[in-house]
Amino acid sequence: MRGLVLDAKWDPKPDYVVSDWEKKTGKAITGSSIWRNPKLQVQERPMPKITRPDEVLLEVKACGVCGSDIHFYETDKDGYMFYPGLTKFPAITGHEFSAKVVETGKEVTNVKVGDPVTVEEMIWCGYCTPCRNGFPNHCSNLEEIGFTIDGAFAQYLVVGSKYCWKVDGILERFGEQVGYDVAALSEPTCVSYNAMFSRAGGFKPGAFVCVFGAGPIGLAAIGLAEAAGAGKIVTFEVSPQRREIAKKIGADEAYDPRQVKIHEVLNDLSQGEGFDFFVEAAGVPELVLSEAEKSLAINAKIVQIGRAAKQVPMYLESFQVRRSQFYGAQGHSGDANFPSVIRLVAGGRLNLLPIITSRYGLDQVVNAIAQSGERRDGKIMVHPN
Amino acid sequence: MRGLVLDAKWDPKPDYVVSDWEKKTGKAITGSSIWRNPKLQVQERPMPKITRPDEVLLEVKACGVCGSDIHFYETDKDGYMFYPGLTKFPAITGHEFSAKVVETGKEVTNVKVGDPVTVEEMIWCGYCTPCRNGFPNHCSNLEEIGFTIDGAFAQYLVVGSKYCWKVDGILERFGEQVGYDVAALSEPTCVSYNAMFSRAGGFKPGAFVCVFGAGPIGLAAIGLAEAAGAGKIVTFEVSPQRREIAKKIGADEAYDPRQVKIHEVLNDLSQGEGFDFFVEAAGVPELVLSEAEKSLAINAKIVQIGRAAKQVPMYLESFQVRRSQFYGAQGHSGDANFPSVIRLVAGGRLNLLPIITSRYGLDQVVNAIAQSGERRDGKIMVHPN
Amino acid sequence: MRGLVLDAKWDPKPDYVVSDWEKKTGKAITGSSIWRNPKLQVQERPMPKITRPDEVLLEVKACGVCGSDIHFYETDKDGYMFYPGLTKFPAITGHEFSAKVVETGKEVTNVKVGDPVTVEEMIWCGYCTPCRNGFPNHCSNLEEIGFTIDGAFAQYLVVGSKYCWKVDGILERFGEQVGYDVAALSEPTCVSYNAMFSRAGGFKPGAFVCVFGAGPIGLAAIGLAEAAGAGKIVTFEVSPQRREIAKKIGADEAYDPRQVKIHEVLNDLSQGEGFDFFVEAAGVPELVLSEAEKSLAINAKIVQIGRAAKQVPMYLESFQVRRSQFYGAQGHSGDANFPSVIRLVAGGRLNLLPIITSRYGLDQVVNAIAQSGERRDGKIMVHPN
Amino acid sequence: MRGLVLDAKWDPKPDYVVSDWEKKTGKAITGSSIWRNPKLQVQERPMPKITRPDEVLLEVKACGVCGSDIHFYETDKDGYMFYPGLTKFPAITGHEFSAKVVETGKEVTNVKVGDPVTVEEMIWCGYCTPCRNGFPNHCSNLEEIGFTIDGAFAQYLVVGSKYCWKVDGILERFGEQVGYDVAALSEPTCVSYNAMFSRAGGFKPGAFVCVFGAGPIGLAAIGLAEAAGAGKIVTFEVSPQRREIAKKIGADEAYDPRQVKIHEVLNDLSQGEGFDFFVEAAGVPELVLSEAEKSLAINAKIVQIGRAAKQVPMYLESFQVRRSQFYGAQGHSGDANFPSVIRLVAGGRLNLLPIITSRYGLDQVVNAIAQSGERRDGKIMVHPN
Repeated sequence: MRGLVLDAKWDPKPDYVVSDWEKKTGKAITGSSIWRNPKLQVQERPMPKITRPDEVLLEVKACGVCGSDIHFYETDKDGYMFYPGLTKFPAITGHEFSAKVVETGKEVTNVKVGDPVTVEEMIWCGYCTPCRNGFPNHCSNLEEIGFTIDGAFAQYLVVGSKYCWKVDGILERFGEQVGYDVAALSEPTCVSYNAMFSRAGGFKPGAFVCVFGAGPIGLAAIGLAEAAGAGKIVTFEVSPQRREIAKKIGADEAYDPRQVKIHEVLNDLSQGEGFDFFVEAAGVPELVLSEAEKSLAINAKIVQIGRAAKQVPMYLESFQVRRSQFYGAQGHSGDANFPSVIRLVAGGRLNLLPIITSRYGLDQVVNAIAQSGERRDGKIMVHPN
Repeated sequence: MRGLVLDAKWDPKPDYVVSDWEKKTGKAITGSSIWRNPKLQVQERPMPKITRPDEVLLEVKACGVCGSDIHFYETDKDGYMFYPGLTKFPAITGHEFSAKVVETGKEVTNVKVGDPVTVEEMIWCGYCTPCRNGFPNHCSNLEEIGFTIDGAFAQYLVVGSKYCWKVDGILERFGEQVGYDVAALSEPTCVSYNAMFSRAGGFKPGAFVCVFGAGPIGLAAIGLAEAAGAGKIVTFEVSPQRREIAKKIGADEAYDPRQVKIHEVLNDLSQGEGFDFFVEAAGVPELVLSEAEKSLAINAKIVQIGRAAKQVPMYLESFQVRRSQFYGAQGHSGDANFPSVIRLVAGGRLNLLPIITSRYGLDQVVNAIAQSGERRDGKIMVHPN
Repeated sequence: MRGLVLDAKWDPKPDYVVSDWEKKTGKAITGSSIWRNPKLQVQERPMPKITRPDEVLLEVKACGVCGSDIHFYETDKDGYMFYPGLTKFPAITGHEFSAKVVETGKEVTNVKVGDPVTVEEMIWCGYCTPCRNGFPNHCSNLEEIGFTIDGAFAQYLVVGSKYCWKVDGILERFGEQVGYDVAALSEPTCVSYNAMFSRAGGFKPGAFVCVFGAGPIGLAAIGLAEAAGAGKIVTFEVSPQRREIAKKIGADEAYDPRQVKIHEVLNDLSQGEGFDFFVEAAGVPELVLSEAEKSLAINAKIVQIGRAAKQVPMYLESFQVRRSQFYGAQGHSGDANFPSVIRLVAGGRLNLLPIITSRYGLDQVVNAIAQSGERRDGKIMVHPN
Repeated sequence: MRGLVLDAKWDPKPDYVVSDWEKKTGKAITGSSIWRNPKLQVQERPMPKITRPDEVLLEVKACGVCGSDIHFYETDKDGYMFYPGLTKFPAITGHEFSAKVVETGKEVTNVKVGDPVTVEEMIWCGYCTPCRNGFPNHCSNLEEIGFTIDGAFAQYLVVGSKYCWKVDGILERFGEQVGYDVAALSEPTCVSYNAMFSRAGGFKPGAFVCVFGAGPIGLAAIGLAEAAGAGKIVTFEVSPQRREIAKKIGADEAYDPRQVKIHEVLNDLSQGEGFDFFVEAAGVPELVLSEAEKSLAINAKIVQIGRAAKQVPMYLESFQVRRSQFYGAQGHSGDANFPSVIRLVAGGRLNLLPIITSRYGLDQVVNAIAQSGERRDGKIMVHPN
């Protein structure tokens, strides 16, 4: 079987204190402080095998290139990879995917051979207290497909069946070929869905929604805001190509944040009443939240999806005067996120197709990642088989 | 000024105990037990005048015929009107309307002369404990436009400015003529919005929604479900004309409830998982809730809008096994219902236009009401000027 | 090892259609229609053994007698047991318990040998859609300790570690002996906690709370209402002994429902404003909900815990006029119910001790169950070791 | 009639731009930039009179000294008052009070002569969009008793009846004399209640609660946390006297924040799980929120009550990793805050009495304010009659 293997050298930066847990597990908590000289290569690897009765073997149909895949590839001047999160290498990368079930363990009941599925990326344990309390995105024993265990830029993959969700409805709507591509967008869409609806509780229909950043997560947020009845949707995004896609997906307005004063735009568009719901999907809260604070409607919500390991100056007085709230979000598991997104797409309420702007075979996956790094695309899809 | 005056004889049924409050105020709590031989007639009436500094004088542009207007008109064999609610006659009827502001009291700031508006029907006091706690729909001192005080099947009307909401955005989208018609649908749409979103907390996008009854309230519920991202919308309605409108507004399926087994349809359409959100807008909970109980998704909600003064047998065990809940709803005021609906319509997210199926002048209003009683229309609109 | 074994004859009633699933699994969905001539006997049984790496072996310290244990014991005139739920016999019964960990499977991390624990009764799978969506109380593959698999009226028991919650804080507060008794009340208390707070969303401090029935579930509800800041707590219960315990646990008033008009009492106590939160823990919704409907505060909630497989006439108009809602509840798992209850008890905020009114050894367990059937006790505790 | 009149000179700081609205209304939006050389003096003033039919005349029984009263009194080196908020002088100050109704306007129905009441400080209009949407704390036309209109450090006062809430239940519990003192704590207690329960949605019983600052608002928050079933309550407060009161009111632990590392204390007390609910009532979010961020339980909430007109560095990543949220709160009106707090106090569930540490007559009110500035007291109560 062929797969895109990422290897790198375990070479902690001099000032980084490697924890006992990192030493014991070989996992880096802060990948960018440990992994050096990453190498990405499509290699021949052993066919994965089912070893537990609750697992399934999947034939990968489509796998999208994620920002994290780019951050594995890009390095600083000393050769350390940019990606700052939990990682263990060597591993096959890729985690936004759809697949066909080709074999099932003997205790598997939710899927059967031939079923088309999409898969959660977060391998939550189901045993720790967060999992038992209903917070799988905060599992204490998390493994992540394509980060700490082998991923989906490969022909085949073995995963636990409980992470699989059937997408037959999506294939019925779009046909098999396009359907698998669309289904592979489920994972990033669920990140936005989880943040907007499961974490922040959504908005009442008619609300004005602002999305910062129109990369794949922001685009999904725009599509979801449109599906959920936003009265107006505005996005701020530096890439002109992405602004175009944003409009196709549902944005009423798409601005280059370098060309306008954000809070003035938002206050004008709302006739001074402010916006009701903000999604930070740009990863630059230090640049945009102060603008949001100046254009909060009374009872507004801000939900943070983008990651930024830095302190952000917040004018809390604005949250008091405007009766507003802030939510931090991560992950996509639990809370019926996957089945809800699948229903939206299968029911024709959410059209994600314009997000996909390029398609490659597995042999071109390194090129696909490099192209993705130019941030002109919506989502680049790789077809490993 | 001309207006449609309803008069009737105060002639309490022999077994009805008239309360002291009814005697003192001349209001009937149970109209159908007191008012006999109702007469509807377009009459010349004195021009209404502003008497308090917070009032406005309105020129009525469009006013819809409501089910209650029909129940004023229809009587039992002894001549008692059908409408069972709070009423005081004689009064001009009509309460689902849009208008242009022609004069403002000296303390009015939210609207100005020339503004197009729609108006709440519930004249909540702002002083009682329910009002102060945020529940104006449950005001202890309620007056109702077109029920206990003069309404909008008339050329002019005086109301408190705080019940008025500007609809300039709707006129911008639809043009002035059609815009006023669409704006007149705000009141019934807010009844559905209040029930679905403010009372029952809405549903997560992708949920399966069932609406019982596709009269104007049910049709608005269907449109709102579509706007808010329902994964699938099904309605049950006896009138074939209304089933057609339901499909235009957003229903995926519309059945005659006499031709199918409701719970079987719902379980089939959801592949056995059940429906997530039920709106009772048919006024026959005794017929349909037992069907809903057999097709509840886990974590389902039922919201009751239709009125039915009778005990309904409920199998509560179903609510326990399916983790489900039931909400009673009435009214449309408060909770940002009006501005939210207006934004949805003005933003093009909710197209109510197909609901309007006939239009009449004030002189034909009695005919309009009679036609409405045939329950073939969506909404009949009357233009008093 | 000794344990209380319940056996009964599989003898379906003539009019009961045995499903294929029942035939295949040997489980009765409606126990009262299948199991005849139940026999309860303390027997010598093989010591249970850990067979999966995530299991633990427990030494049972205390196990309460539940209403279901009584319904296993009581029969109709034809000898069919009263208990109407999911069951598979022979099995050791008992499911409200505390225990000490005596052995752990090799993958267990949340508890260690010597730890005091209490245990969920619902063995949710973690794989089905309800489990993955966060609704373990509605697991599609549920097993139940003491109902379909061996329970805790026994010296030892093997369970999955994920169903175990440490109660060291409770033992610190009460000492080891009393602490284990109190800890054994966690399960029924979590049933009330789940219903009141996880399902119905609780009440705002100061709310007036009415609890129907002061058996163990109702008593726990009263204690929880007191802990959570109810402004006033009233209970209705036929047993004078239980009314006394109710007052110790936190009820301001405790009435015999046969001696008063419930809705008059509630309206008097609230000066006509009505009660805000109702807990049905008597299992007779057909008798009490119509009283609740006449004493609903605006924005009231009713949560149904008691089971009653019958249609209950509901006057839905009351829920509309009073802006009220109804929630069905079952189970105790998930939503941080167990850790929350344990913290309340360990922190001294919730004193459940007055609920325990008798204690027995394992040899007297049949007597304990018989005594429990007289419904004079709060909770009878059995000490198997 | 005698009252404490605050006068000051309208002398805008050179760099402060006086808005047109400020010029027109004579109200300063930022008091500390305009009002110079404040003078506080008990003066003879005309007896206030009812001028609108919905007003009442009140005889003030008790009025607490608030931090804002101190900030009126304290000035910077240039003589500008410290208080930064909305103000119009001269005015009688004082806004946390109880009173007896001595006269009622002809439309008043909710209170009658002789009734004991407490009063909202926020004079919300009921007409603006925030008011109509249910957000009176965010009224666009706010007047504030003791800030922009005459307050309650006076023998008599006229207010709109809709801001009055009866406290007869409190007088029944505490007797008339103490009862009026306790009732005068309703206003600051409602500020905490609004923040914790109406804004942040409260916490599930058993949750661990941390309160920053044990001034009157923080003390009320501690009492409310205890009443609402917190599993553990910890406060951080520099004043040793206030730490003592905190323990009487319900704090399990009270620390001097200068003597400990806050996040270490919180993580120790929660055995590493973190705290669930944080109340910032110290007005120094820049000092304490970074500590909260390091001790967030999964699904934690932070609610900001203290005012601090500065940017606070926030590590948003913590909110993402710990599934946490932040709420800004202001005000006390609406959402049944007043009736709920009154019920808690009248029902004996919330004992605020230990908060009151000194009592003065009206003649000593300037001394009372000076003493309050030493921040050793809980609450100082002034008796104007």
